[in-house]
Amino acid sequence: MQKKEQLYEGKAKKVYATDEPDLVIVSYKDDATAGDGAKKGTIRDKGIVNNRLSNALMQKLEQEGVPTHFVQQLSDRETLVKKVDIIPLEVIVRNVAAGHFSLRMGVEEGTPFKQPILEFSYKNDELHDPFINHYYALALGLATQEEIDAITAYAFKVNEVLKAVLLQANIRLIDFKLEFGRLADGTVVLADEISPDTCRFWDATTGAHLDKDLFRRDLGGEEDAYQEVMRRLLG
Amino acid sequence: MQKKEQLYEGKAKKVYATDEPDLVIVSYKDDATAGDGAKKGTIRDKGIVNNRLSNALMQKLEQEGVPTHFVQQLSDRETLVKKVDIIPLEVIVRNVAAGHFSLRMGVEEGTPFKQPILEFSYKNDELHDPFINHYYALALGLATQEEIDAITAYAFKVNEVLKAVLLQANIRLIDFKLEFGRLADGTVVLADEISPDTCRFWDATTGAHLDKDLFRRDLGGEEDAYQEVMRRLLG
Repeated sequence: MQKKEQLYEGKAKKVYATDEPDLVIVSYKDDATAGDGAKKGTIRDKGIVNNRLSNALMQKLEQEGVPTHFVQQLSDRETLVKKVDIIPLEVIVRNVAAGHFSLRMGVEEGTPFKQPILEFSYKNDELHDPFINHYYALALGLATQEEIDAITAYAFKVNEVLKAVLLQANIRLIDFKLEFGRLADGTVVLADEISPDTCRFWDATTGAHLDKDLFRRDLGGEEDAYQEVMRRLLG
Repeated sequence: MQKKEQLYEGKAKKVYATDEPDLVIVSYKDDATAGDGAKKGTIRDKGIVNNRLSNALMQKLEQEGVPTHFVQQLSDRETLVKKVDIIPLEVIVRNVAAGHFSLRMGVEEGTPFKQPILEFSYKNDELHDPFINHYYALALGLATQEEIDAITAYAFKVNEVLKAVLLQANIRLIDFKLEFGRLADGTVVLADEISPDTCRFWDATTGAHLDKDLFRRDLGGEEDAYQEVMRRLLG
């Protein structure tokens, strides 16, 4: 597999073409942003943690029946994945009130919900990723009803699988963001990453943050926390 | 039916008890507010228009299979309705992009949608009625799944009925807000009002506003517009 030209550079990853048209290489960076890009920094070796963790979790999800873009880890920071057309939705699942949700809804951070909340944001930097619902997605042509149905079922399944995996590592899954993509044949697969950048992980005993909130909220210790999550999950 | 003590005073209506525990009297005011209460004023005889219009539309909806709180008009400004426990959701249906939606989503006002959009806001003054979705409503215990299902079906039905009625009056239904309530036995019925306060009505030929946007946006002519809508719909 030959790495070819860079196709895209995002906030936390670069994507390269390969000599196979349906495959691309994702390369994880240490760059971190927060507050809609207002805060910028780096978290040392974050790219390594996120690459390795995301790959392990995606492989577990594949085993549990959730199709993903994962093909093969190439190095500490690089992974071969299926090329997708990203569906422009941020798919968020919440088990416990936290962050922006708590502020908007006046529900104290740490309050568990009776049942998980699923929500969509429209991935659009110019509009600052506004919160929408599935009717918006349909009316604006962002996804079809069949895609929304698949995404909804996969998102709840991912939640169940991840909650169980994480609890074995004494980590509580508070909330997380997923992205899905379409393969060339239209199949919907889980894409992007699953990592402390995209999930809220709390130590199940102490409640300590083990995720990017340490960086977002200037709490410090984010490098150690990322390493700790990797150690607990990958040994 | 005897009018007894005032139970509630809202921005546009007062509610009075009656000697029947399951019935209350709604009294429509001319007071108008906009911009989350930032703008206050009055629209002369708005209470008369909204009372008469809302009653006529609710009676039409009852005929079409949507249960409502309407019982009997008592006077130009007062109506006897079934007492309900209001479900704390603002139920919004959109056929065409307008107002806050257009600003948030970067979709030009007047753009029709491929299919209607339904959305919920949490009726909570302190939180400024935040946009939520049905998972939020369930997780926060605002409504049950059965209530959400009933509200969803009724809201789309109301849209179809109102669109047809209004088109006969050469009025285009852009969007509108409904509220639902529970009767003592738990039955979900349409409550609140359907009026130029709670709907966007555009003249189907000229596109002229025939609703509260004239007041909200300081365009003027709101008194005439309210009368015009009543004249077209009630003769």
